[in-house]
Amino acid sequence: MQPIRQQFSVPFTYEVRFTVGLFQSGNPLLADALTEREGRRPVRTLFVIEDGGAAHHPTLVADIAAYAATHRQKLDLVADPMIVPGGEQAKNDPDLVRQIQQAIADYVIWRHSHVGAIGGGALLDLAGYAAATAHRCVRHIRVPTTVLAQNDSGVGVKNGVNAFNSKNFLGTFAPPQAVLNDRLFLRTLDDRDWRGGISEAIKVALIKEAAFFDFIEREAHWLHPSVRADEPMQELIYRCAEMHVEHISAYGDPFETGSSRPLDFGHWAAHKLEALTNYDVRHGEAVAIGISLDCVYAHLAGYLAESDLERILATFEVLGFDLFHEALLSRLDDPAHSDSLYQGLEALREHLGGQLTYMLLNSFGDAFEVHEMDHSVFVRSAQYLRERALTKQNASNVSA
Amino acid sequence: MQPIRQQFSVPFTYEVRFTVGLFQSGNPLLADALTEREGRRPVRTLFVIEDGGAAHHPTLVADIAAYAATHRQKLDLVADPMIVPGGEQAKNDPDLVRQIQQAIADYVIWRHSHVGAIGGGALLDLAGYAAATAHRCVRHIRVPTTVLAQNDSGVGVKNGVNAFNSKNFLGTFAPPQAVLNDRLFLRTLDDRDWRGGISEAIKVALIKEAAFFDFIEREAHWLHPSVRADEPMQELIYRCAEMHVEHISAYGDPFETGSSRPLDFGHWAAHKLEALTNYDVRHGEAVAIGISLDCVYAHLAGYLAESDLERILATFEVLGFDLFHEALLSRLDDPAHSDSLYQGLEALREHLGGQLTYMLLNSFGDAFEVHEMDHSVFVRSAQYLRERALTKQNASNVSA
Repeated sequence: MQPIRQQFSVPFTYEVRFTVGLFQSGNPLLADALTEREGRRPVRTLFVIEDGGAAHHPTLVADIAAYAATHRQKLDLVADPMIVPGGEQAKNDPDLVRQIQQAIADYVIWRHSHVGAIGGGALLDLAGYAAATAHRCVRHIRVPTTVLAQNDSGVGVKNGVNAFNSKNFLGTFAPPQAVLNDRLFLRTLDDRDWRGGISEAIKVALIKEAAFFDFIEREAHWLHPSVRADEPMQELIYRCAEMHVEHISAYGDPFETGSSRPLDFGHWAAHKLEALTNYDVRHGEAVAIGISLDCVYAHLAGYLAESDLERILATFEVLGFDLFHEALLSRLDDPAHSDSLYQGLEALREHLGGQLTYMLLNSFGDAFEVHEMDHSVFVRSAQYLRERALTKQNASNVSA
Repeated sequence: MQPIRQQFSVPFTYEVRFTVGLFQSGNPLLADALTEREGRRPVRTLFVIEDGGAAHHPTLVADIAAYAATHRQKLDLVADPMIVPGGEQAKNDPDLVRQIQQAIADYVIWRHSHVGAIGGGALLDLAGYAAATAHRCVRHIRVPTTVLAQNDSGVGVKNGVNAFNSKNFLGTFAPPQAVLNDRLFLRTLDDRDWRGGISEAIKVALIKEAAFFDFIEREAHWLHPSVRADEPMQELIYRCAEMHVEHISAYGDPFETGSSRPLDFGHWAAHKLEALTNYDVRHGEAVAIGISLDCVYAHLAGYLAESDLERILATFEVLGFDLFHEALLSRLDDPAHSDSLYQGLEALREHLGGQLTYMLLNSFGDAFEVHEMDHSVFVRSAQYLRERALTKQNASNVSA
């Protein structure tokens, strides 16, 4: 009997939209996003809010209720918003996924209903996973509240939680219905979270567009958490989100069936560093170190010019990033030890099914794939960052 | 700021292939299917086998080991196959999903590795869900071992498990890498499972192709479990699988974002009947009753001709299906009671987000969508099936 061949394509579309005051009653954006693809109204909606966001915005829950009352013809608020923990640790708690799914069941959220998730990247990952696996994918709208989520994790197509000691072991590819970026949420970020998300913008700039790096370098002082200029931050978020969104589709492998992962530039070390420090180092901070490490490596391996490396490291430093952490030196001479940062590379190799592929930088906007790493050069790269940090510290002590 | 618009399509392809003796060493089908999309070899593979299948085929585990030894350049058997329970009850046990995911973690099954699932529809749903959510979708190959799985559930794109008292509450759309149908597995099916899967073929025939119904009607005596003619069964499975596969792509909504669900013909009552009987009535048996009920309804509501109805019911009866179950009468006059079969319709309405859509039959191959059901006609339909069953029983008592 001849094989029966199945072949189809599934189209996905969504928009990342920018606003100020998403839950102000006069703002039609959310109500329109909910009903955009749904003739039947009002649309049943369950909100899941990160506890930190709810604490920083004490009127948020009341604002949502008032918004729902104003827009009752479009939005049916089926229950009070769920308040759940965020941050990477929340992704380690399987009960949080279960609680959100229980609420989806209890409040009869179906495929034509919506889960609206409001929070940082971890909360969006968690709520997105709960929604994507309920009823084979409940629609969800993302309202990212951090720089990192607004320009990177929140605008993509992935979700996930940690399990079996593995980051994002459980997850799916599930594009959101919409991503709604409200700049008001950024005002209450602490300094580390304001700064952290900038590292993903630097990542995208380095591998994709020299002019964007020039912009970040030029604006770095204004972007510093002690200054917090709104306009350059909005431009940074917009351009980073735009490149991220474009990359997912233009690269031709949105659900990552292949092995090439340019957006993971600098991330092999970042993921390991987060785990080694029990997530004391936050994702954006770890990415800054991971990118710096790979850039030093690229320089020491003969690719990246010293002047280019200097511009990259200096930009991170002007923004206030630490580019060295003691964990970089952990088991430096024992790359096979599970506490060695180098094992992040092995995790990536395993992740990719046995063949390692990661990016190195030639120059701004010019990255290339490599399949091996020289451990001795890696060791020298880690030492380079330590020495640079010590020199900086001494200079600052002298000047103090 | 202008919205950033994301738009992409994800292509999916897979083949349903037919063979005899999938694990005989000389059969290249499995080894080729594993390596079809993967340059790196051998491909790490974890098998998950339904316990009933393993019991009925006591050499299966050894056969797989021998097959892997012969094809070691393509197949890397990372561990002994996992033996797990199958059947609908297995989908109620969240620990089974966890066990399979734990094995995926322990044996380093990644996106370029494979989970091979061998069993009936429930086991394939369960293992498929575990694989689809691990690492944002581990590749999986399905080896369906029942008529129902070979012609229907196993060849589609869905997976799922039950949760929160809801069938398939957790699940995803995740096309397999391949479906490998081995007719040898059918030989050990019990009579009920041999027969049960035929009802899905009748379903597809009724809504799609009169000639296929003619074929099943003509061959019904040969397809009866006491006869088990191999050739008509293979043709039935092939044509049903082909129409099922074609429907998923040709209908233009493979991941079911809309509301129209022709392949759910007869299923609203079937799902409820399964639940009401605590799954004593198996899926295929329940579908036979559900189709019969909706056909009687279509006749009583003035659509389906009596002669056509008679051909449909008679074909089911020749195959040995019972077309009546006491649960049809449960709370017959109290449609809002949760024990009323009629609540299956409400569950479907909820499932579809508030607007009911289901299929009724005009004639063979001619189905149409309806959005309401007349409860009094439903009551008469259930009574019709009871009376027909009583008449048959009396006739058989008289003849005995």
